[in-house]
Amino acid sequence: MRNIKLTIEYDGKKYLGWQRLGDSDKTIQGKIEKILTKMTGTEVEIIGSGRTDSGTHARGQIANFKTESTLPTAEMLTYLNNFLPRDIVVKKVDEAAERFHARYNAKAKKYSYYVWNNPIPSAFERNYSFHYPQALNLDLMEQACQKLVGEHDFIGFSALKKSKKSTVRTINELSIEQEGALLHITFVGDGFLHKMVRILTGTILEIGAGEMKLEMIDQIFANQVRSEAGITVPAQGLFLDEVYYN
Amino acid sequence: MRNIKLTIEYDGKKYLGWQRLGDSDKTIQGKIEKILTKMTGTEVEIIGSGRTDSGTHARGQIANFKTESTLPTAEMLTYLNNFLPRDIVVKKVDEAAERFHARYNAKAKKYSYYVWNNPIPSAFERNYSFHYPQALNLDLMEQACQKLVGEHDFIGFSALKKSKKSTVRTINELSIEQEGALLHITFVGDGFLHKMVRILTGTILEIGAGEMKLEMIDQIFANQVRSEAGITVPAQGLFLDEVYYN
Repeated sequence: MRNIKLTIEYDGKKYLGWQRLGDSDKTIQGKIEKILTKMTGTEVEIIGSGRTDSGTHARGQIANFKTESTLPTAEMLTYLNNFLPRDIVVKKVDEAAERFHARYNAKAKKYSYYVWNNPIPSAFERNYSFHYPQALNLDLMEQACQKLVGEHDFIGFSALKKSKKSTVRTINELSIEQEGALLHITFVGDGFLHKMVRILTGTILEIGAGEMKLEMIDQIFANQVRSEAGITVPAQGLFLDEVYYN
Repeated sequence: MRNIKLTIEYDGKKYLGWQRLGDSDKTIQGKIEKILTKMTGTEVEIIGSGRTDSGTHARGQIANFKTESTLPTAEMLTYLNNFLPRDIVVKKVDEAAERFHARYNAKAKKYSYYVWNNPIPSAFERNYSFHYPQALNLDLMEQACQKLVGEHDFIGFSALKKSKKSTVRTINELSIEQEGALLHITFVGDGFLHKMVRILTGTILEIGAGEMKLEMIDQIFANQVRSEAGITVPAQGLFLDEVYYN
């Protein structure tokens, strides 16, 4: 059996997210599996590095699948991009080691969140950012990032209720770049809980806008109360950029 | 009567272009006039700096209209962006001199055309560029730009048949920037004939791909035969960036 690794880019706008839902045609996983099944002639199931929410984008989602097909990887690449809808693109097809598992072997992930920080909206960024018109104190936002970096129990910054599994995660990098009216927030960490990147971004924004005190971050780490953190910013500003493996 | 100047950005994807067509709701001009008529309580007609084709975008289209409304410009700006669809944004509303005319007074225009030059398509650039996968010789393309700059009769590089009006135009700047796989071609000139930017781009690309000889440019200036120039590249890569006035 060959083990094939895919690097995938998608504009998530029209989809219900990564994970296949029954026979729905509205998920990224479902769309790709359908083409792979046609290509190989046998039912294919792909394993993604993790789910992405409805409306979220990816520049470097990773998935793998097993196959007995003898088709060269270059031909798989061409076939996939010929048949996939134009908002899903396979950027690379590689042979992977037999034991490679896109989810279990993922060591870290990088996400970007974009904020359009201008009183006037943008006709072009509207599907790829969150329009947040309030004036922001970037210095306070950087301080919030510093408080969030490191190993913490992030359950209060997630959409999870109580969890039996550990909700401790490590954020290695959390930085903000300003490109005109566009703020680009980068998150690198060993794993992210459900909606954690969007809730952290909402919290950082509310701190920047003076609607929340910086010290609330320590308080939420301590009391784990989700409702004290910031809003869940919308999915269309979020991109899964990269998945890291050993 | 006040004379009001609008600076407008739009994602042209869903529209039949700038110019109002009967009662159609599918043009930029029609959409904006409808909101202005509601805002002022009297029928408003706006004058654009020029038409843009179906599917073409703008970052800085200029239009003006006369009104007896006493609404401050800041309130007009808010009103327009509240009621316009999200793919049309008014960036500025200014009081203009009584005699200001967005079309007659336009001295020059700047357009951008984007080419996604990679064998693999892009899920994000697909609506804002032309996917041209062939290998390109950038040096030849720069030489083509040099031949096109200056004052010429561009009728052979336009969608016009014979014209009673002059088809002589001056291109002041024509340059190519490479940003990864994205080529950004900038045109500045005193005026552009119908589809001229798109046909010039098609010609520059075919020269870069080795499908057309550089000398064809001189030949087309001499014989004015449209069919000898390059393809008309698609509208979705084209942006009207700026209109210049005295």
